[in-house]
Amino acid sequence: MSIQNHSQDRYFMMLAIEQAKQGLYTTRPNPAVGCVIVQADKVVGQGFHPKAGEPHAEVFALREAGARAVGATAYVTLEPCSHTGRTPPCALAIIAAGVKRVVIAGLDPNPQVAGRGVKLLEQSGIEVTLGVLTAQAEALNHGFLTAMRTQMPYVRLKIATSLDGRTAMASGESKWITSAAARADVQILRAQSGAIITGSETVIADNPQLNVRSNQLGVSPEQVPTPMVVVLDRRQRLTHSPQSDYQLCRRPDTVYWRTDDLTTLLKTLVSDYQCYDVLVEAGASVAGSFLSQQLVDELIVYQAPCLLGAQARPMVEFNPLSLAQQLRFNVDSHEQIGSDLKLTLLPL
Amino acid sequence: MSIQNHSQDRYFMMLAIEQAKQGLYTTRPNPAVGCVIVQADKVVGQGFHPKAGEPHAEVFALREAGARAVGATAYVTLEPCSHTGRTPPCALAIIAAGVKRVVIAGLDPNPQVAGRGVKLLEQSGIEVTLGVLTAQAEALNHGFLTAMRTQMPYVRLKIATSLDGRTAMASGESKWITSAAARADVQILRAQSGAIITGSETVIADNPQLNVRSNQLGVSPEQVPTPMVVVLDRRQRLTHSPQSDYQLCRRPDTVYWRTDDLTTLLKTLVSDYQCYDVLVEAGASVAGSFLSQQLVDELIVYQAPCLLGAQARPMVEFNPLSLAQQLRFNVDSHEQIGSDLKLTLLPL
Repeated sequence: MSIQNHSQDRYFMMLAIEQAKQGLYTTRPNPAVGCVIVQADKVVGQGFHPKAGEPHAEVFALREAGARAVGATAYVTLEPCSHTGRTPPCALAIIAAGVKRVVIAGLDPNPQVAGRGVKLLEQSGIEVTLGVLTAQAEALNHGFLTAMRTQMPYVRLKIATSLDGRTAMASGESKWITSAAARADVQILRAQSGAIITGSETVIADNPQLNVRSNQLGVSPEQVPTPMVVVLDRRQRLTHSPQSDYQLCRRPDTVYWRTDDLTTLLKTLVSDYQCYDVLVEAGASVAGSFLSQQLVDELIVYQAPCLLGAQARPMVEFNPLSLAQQLRFNVDSHEQIGSDLKLTLLPL
Repeated sequence: MSIQNHSQDRYFMMLAIEQAKQGLYTTRPNPAVGCVIVQADKVVGQGFHPKAGEPHAEVFALREAGARAVGATAYVTLEPCSHTGRTPPCALAIIAAGVKRVVIAGLDPNPQVAGRGVKLLEQSGIEVTLGVLTAQAEALNHGFLTAMRTQMPYVRLKIATSLDGRTAMASGESKWITSAAARADVQILRAQSGAIITGSETVIADNPQLNVRSNQLGVSPEQVPTPMVVVLDRRQRLTHSPQSDYQLCRRPDTVYWRTDDLTTLLKTLVSDYQCYDVLVEAGASVAGSFLSQQLVDELIVYQAPCLLGAQARPMVEFNPLSLAQQLRFNVDSHEQIGSDLKLTLLPL
């Protein structure tokens, strides 16, 4: 196995990543993977994994390539699998097709694969190159990769706030702080999530639908698996009350979490529900708990260009005693969405 | 006079604007103006106004062009002056040089000019084109143009804040929230200001130098006129106290304003001090007063990617009673400065 990074390899890997993106919202809990087969500098086959249970990217690409796969180079965004799951191992399919060289963006940390795919290929004399556009390919599967490596999900915390860090007036009045475009963008965050965590207070105050209605996914919303909803209900305000007509409660996939042990909740979401990408959409108090317990992998702030004043409600309830206890982030990206700003921040 | 906008005119006007930028921090209270003389599609002369009392941009450009100005086109970022101030009228210099056509970005709203420059040119048979890159040229002289049109200065309010809209811990602890790069950027805001307004509380708490130390101005800081400092001292905490060793107080150009009538203060800065660009650098309470009285033309927020918590001090003290009373802005620009974000916002 060699580790190289030539510009031609990067180009074809970019095409494989574009393939993978087509499965971004539909493959859960499987990772999004793309594959491109190149014969004499020409793409002769391409494919992506569309959905758990259906064939992997390599199978579609090899099918399209047919006999042109003999002596070709295969570009795959994730190490080909070596185990028989719902489909046979892709490494064997690649070997059987007569591919001469395989270029891989990154290893699959799934303990059932984890380098065994590469080993299978090399044992049959195939040249393997690893490490081409790794970061770009891994960005498609933050949840899957984090879960395989740490048994914890990748947690995104979304907050909509004013410029002065407020979410509602002191009275509770709060509708329409961010623009319709920002609210539509949240649908994309939901679409990539296996579970959405919210708080009982949010359910009681807003009763949000927390569903996926976006038409910006490249697939119809019906093809996107509905995220499970987890309601934090430590005080059992929803589960022990007669207020049973909240829409969320009627969703068959709603789970109530009655302790304040968020770490165990997140571990359980991975181990019992295969939820690898988790979105937290809740109020200031739940946001503060996740942040101060260092459970957030990515903070997404939709910031409306408005000032609500010093009496308005804060965006995060947590109370450091000194500057040294502040929470700091790196700005990963900033963009305008409608009239608002969307900031993506990674904890330091 | 015709109003046209051909690509060639835009190109040469862009060059004239680049000229004008060289005077950006040194021409106060005069506007920054640039001029380019074009003969047979070639630049034969260029110049900018460097400093009040020195020749205007047109004079430098015509000097360089010499005899090649005969039959040439002159590009000027602001209407040539028609009155004799400390220098003779530029319109006459252009006519005398034999220029055939003059392209102007925008009219000079100075009541001593205001179209009279154009009239002079046209009366002598020169073809005048108006309205090329007007917005880009006017962006160099927000203060001058606003003052000439409204007798009020262009007011920039600068606030450094955390992601959750806080400026200091509840204890007052506040040093180094934003990065060194953001603090250096503030020097540029100061350099373009005729006056900096601060509050007595800020002086007592931080005693800031409020001077211009930037090496990012393209000119040495010594060439930049020192902004006047205005301390809002309604309660006369500084002027009637024996605490006389604040550095600001020792600056000869410090003025104390003892009422809470900010509108009169701003008008006075224009009429009595020729301060057309004003920067407000103060605490949450002064910021709130300027904002809620609609006296801010541009809000500049340096946002550190950190959370200080719900007990920390708010960035703006003002208390709307309902969402309808919120202050809203358009995002004019957002950029990363060091590790922070710089947002420029224009009130709706």
